[in-house]
Amino acid sequence: MKITIKKVDKTNFPSFIALVKELAKYEKLAPPDNAAVKRLKKDSISSRPKIESYLAYVNEKPIGYMILLMTYSSFLAKSTLYIEDIFILKEYRQKRIGQKMFDFIKKLAKQRKCGRIEWTVLKWNKPAIKFYNKNKAELMKEWLFYRLTI
Amino acid sequence: MKITIKKVDKTNFPSFIALVKELAKYEKLAPPDNAAVKRLKKDSISSRPKIESYLAYVNEKPIGYMILLMTYSSFLAKSTLYIEDIFILKEYRQKRIGQKMFDFIKKLAKQRKCGRIEWTVLKWNKPAIKFYNKNKAELMKEWLFYRLTI
Repeated sequence: MKITIKKVDKTNFPSFIALVKELAKYEKLAPPDNAAVKRLKKDSISSRPKIESYLAYVNEKPIGYMILLMTYSSFLAKSTLYIEDIFILKEYRQKRIGQKMFDFIKKLAKQRKCGRIEWTVLKWNKPAIKFYNKNKAELMKEWLFYRLTI
Repeated sequence: MKITIKKVDKTNFPSFIALVKELAKYEKLAPPDNAAVKRLKKDSISSRPKIESYLAYVNEKPIGYMILLMTYSSFLAKSTLYIEDIFILKEYRQKRIGQKMFDFIKKLAKQRKCGRIEWTVLKWNKPAIKFYNKNKAELMKEWLFYRLTI
């Protein structure tokens, strides 16, 4: 089984969007509509991208994706690598592909001299939580996560 | 009482750092050391800043600060305005300065066509939580916040 990770570009953008829609289904959220797909294209593969998007392949078949971006810790005064999405198709889970993707993220964070990697996970997503705990990630129990919708 | 908000620049950078150290004290966290202050300067006021830093003044005296950055929602396919820090000196609280700062952030988010504003708050920080609830912010109860330290 050959696992590879490639940046999203014009050629593989349709595969990327198909996987974003699969994650929406898995998380029981509304998938991106046509206007959102257009914005995602601009925001991920234009000359001034807002996100970094990657596809994971098994033997040339795209079966997972990641959306990453850079945030910051003011107290460390260092960048943080933030995981917006990480997803693998159901039939390709439990094959250590997620570990390969997470190791890729850790390597990127080190190369960029980040102090931390951060992300959020849905409370009911037990397999993901088990995976993060196995990777020695820390649940930030003393913090509350807030949102204001514009 | 004249409240103004200005971007952090070379001139007011020392006032900014003094306030960052006050927040560290309030949150019972280690304040930035000399190397961290140097990085904060580069990351906030260089030609390629990683964060947007603002000072709040009362009658020309700097009494609060904000550190903001842009993140992203893949499902909305829109930018999110992320609040890394928002802080006001103790003796200037309860004077609606925080509301002015929060309104400034909301205006920025609208101008930039963001879908959301997001942030985290320490569980014991009851005055801040009360303020966010009053501002109709939503506690994202179904999400867990994770961190891996590099």
